[in-house]
Amino acid sequence: MTTVPVPADSLYGVTNLPYGVFSVGESAPRVGTRLGDSVIDLAVLLGDEVFARPSLNAFMAQGYDRWVAVRRQITERVAGDIPDEAVHPLDDVTLHLPVEVADYVDFYASEHHAANLGRLFRPDNPEPLMPNWKHLPVGYHGRASSIVVSGTDIVRPNGQRKGKDDAVPVFGPSVRLDIEAELGFLVGTGTAMGDTVPVEDADRSIFGVVLFNDWSARDIQAWEYVPLGPNLGKSFASTISPWVVPLLALEQARVATPVQDPEPLPYLAMEAPWGLDVDLSVRWNGSEVSRPPYREMYWSPAQMLAHVTVNGAPSRTGDVFASGTISGPERNTRGAFIELTWGGAEPVSVGGEQRTFLEDGDEVTITASAPGAGGTRLGFGEATGRILPAVHAS
Amino acid sequence: MTTVPVPADSLYGVTNLPYGVFSVGESAPRVGTRLGDSVIDLAVLLGDEVFARPSLNAFMAQGYDRWVAVRRQITERVAGDIPDEAVHPLDDVTLHLPVEVADYVDFYASEHHAANLGRLFRPDNPEPLMPNWKHLPVGYHGRASSIVVSGTDIVRPNGQRKGKDDAVPVFGPSVRLDIEAELGFLVGTGTAMGDTVPVEDADRSIFGVVLFNDWSARDIQAWEYVPLGPNLGKSFASTISPWVVPLLALEQARVATPVQDPEPLPYLAMEAPWGLDVDLSVRWNGSEVSRPPYREMYWSPAQMLAHVTVNGAPSRTGDVFASGTISGPERNTRGAFIELTWGGAEPVSVGGEQRTFLEDGDEVTITASAPGAGGTRLGFGEATGRILPAVHAS
Repeated sequence: MTTVPVPADSLYGVTNLPYGVFSVGESAPRVGTRLGDSVIDLAVLLGDEVFARPSLNAFMAQGYDRWVAVRRQITERVAGDIPDEAVHPLDDVTLHLPVEVADYVDFYASEHHAANLGRLFRPDNPEPLMPNWKHLPVGYHGRASSIVVSGTDIVRPNGQRKGKDDAVPVFGPSVRLDIEAELGFLVGTGTAMGDTVPVEDADRSIFGVVLFNDWSARDIQAWEYVPLGPNLGKSFASTISPWVVPLLALEQARVATPVQDPEPLPYLAMEAPWGLDVDLSVRWNGSEVSRPPYREMYWSPAQMLAHVTVNGAPSRTGDVFASGTISGPERNTRGAFIELTWGGAEPVSVGGEQRTFLEDGDEVTITASAPGAGGTRLGFGEATGRILPAVHAS
Repeated sequence: MTTVPVPADSLYGVTNLPYGVFSVGESAPRVGTRLGDSVIDLAVLLGDEVFARPSLNAFMAQGYDRWVAVRRQITERVAGDIPDEAVHPLDDVTLHLPVEVADYVDFYASEHHAANLGRLFRPDNPEPLMPNWKHLPVGYHGRASSIVVSGTDIVRPNGQRKGKDDAVPVFGPSVRLDIEAELGFLVGTGTAMGDTVPVEDADRSIFGVVLFNDWSARDIQAWEYVPLGPNLGKSFASTISPWVVPLLALEQARVATPVQDPEPLPYLAMEAPWGLDVDLSVRWNGSEVSRPPYREMYWSPAQMLAHVTVNGAPSRTGDVFASGTISGPERNTRGAFIELTWGGAEPVSVGGEQRTFLEDGDEVTITASAPGAGGTRLGFGEATGRILPAVHAS
């Protein structure tokens, strides 16, 4: 038996206990939690086979009451002696995609981001926001199979683009490769076709939160996106953090969302505060270039889930929905480089170089923290990816 | 042992042999083929456990060479005596969703449909087609979990809409509920992230073809779809036929697509004819209201798959991509009611009544046939659904 030392200022103390999927050497991936700089094997700790699986889905599907009970159980067990065979140094494990993704929807919930992109993509339009934007959380379905775990290299995508001076579209590697710093939300328990998830029930459906980088090829996106929305400009890859912070750990992070004016329709009305006081940090080749504040997001995760099911669309264990780029009002809080550099017109300093969009070899790392119980802070792991050159394509 | 009688003019003779998933009574769903008005249990016929599964995915994942070999095997076996226990009258079985859907993408491949919708949705724009339309097969990701098998009732969706005379959006049941008659294509074998499916390899990736009804709430769609594309206007349900016609059965249906001008970029160039001479029929409460001709589609399935993977996005066994509404040049070949009735302005006669959009209790059935080997015709089963009233929602 052993005890796991956790410094008082660790972002992974007993008030966090995020879930992830790990393997050691050639062993099969299984569910663990992070405590300090150790990974605790939950199948061993709790003697429950639901954690001896390569994804969180089976556990998530057990539902809210089990999530509460298991969190309490883990908290009690890690306070005492832990079986040696349950403990692995973080450096010894490989972290995997924690969830088998069912459907994936990306929203567009930051007013600052939506307005900035409106100005950049539709400069002739006097209104940066579309007329629907303040009435519903606008979102679109993305490609579930291209969600990868932090650390996966990102190959620069090929595709069509057409600059305003090009007579015809050209094909080749994207020259405006960008990020979108977001949070992703994992649906733990689903709903049958015809059912809905009212805002007030979202707590019982949403299992946890991950960091999410929606890599975006702006040149491909700008050419393809009318009228059916983004497709290949986004579908090549999205990176999530390996650690899923339980929504149950985020009680102290719950804050009011910005005032919603006009008042949303009744099915989007909120009683409980559903904003999240999560501070993100975006590092580009090690230089912090932005600090997006999640608390600025106009639409809340509960509203997004209520909206996406209000038409009776089913939801499933493993559905992932992401917030869209998190951008605050100041330049250095913008969560996408297209905003940060104003379409490439205003470069930022990255390790002494002036940069606009991503170059081959660049690495982007998103991290975040939020208030936890007892004055602690909770870490979200990281979502990191490095750009590899495009593959040759005709 | 028994023989299965098949009339010479059956759409389900030995040149078709579509795959489906069926159950008898309380037995577990398993894979079968249709011969005349019988369903043949393939696990029994061929003694192969890959068919004793509740979806086609495991078989599809075995790849092209196996698809060829199994089709030859079935053809030989059904020509002779078939074990009694392998044969079930069609009327005795329940048909299920044949595929576990991975990612779902809906395209927009009919020039007539895209132009008609451009005129209806963007009447102020002098060009009905967007500038990108003839350069790439425009498409978007849809909700995989709301794809249901023929016969599933469709509950009228609730949602936001805002008519041009409404000061603010209103919430309630869609009042412009529509269909889209399409074909869906099932990806049999996938590709890893970073790989592509060139047009010339599409034959080896696409397993088969289904009928596809992309139910559409036009009022919800019109309000939500800018700038990220359709979401809740489509995500509540799509219906597919239970029978998957193998692409291998459709050699005689392969025809040239309409001339593509301008010539597409090299990654979309086609050598082999990739159009499909499939005649669809749309019946509304029993009255045939349209006969959409698939051969009129501008973009081919091979081009759609090549496009959606050209950026390195992975594809998976069970991916479904659909063509978008099939509309020909004449009014009575339009595959969506919004086109057929010109936005509701020109009603059609349905069993003696003048109709525009779907009313509660209405039933829509899509069927199709195509030329098969030896002068036969092949049937595609049917995609049918009945509209139930919206559920009460605040």
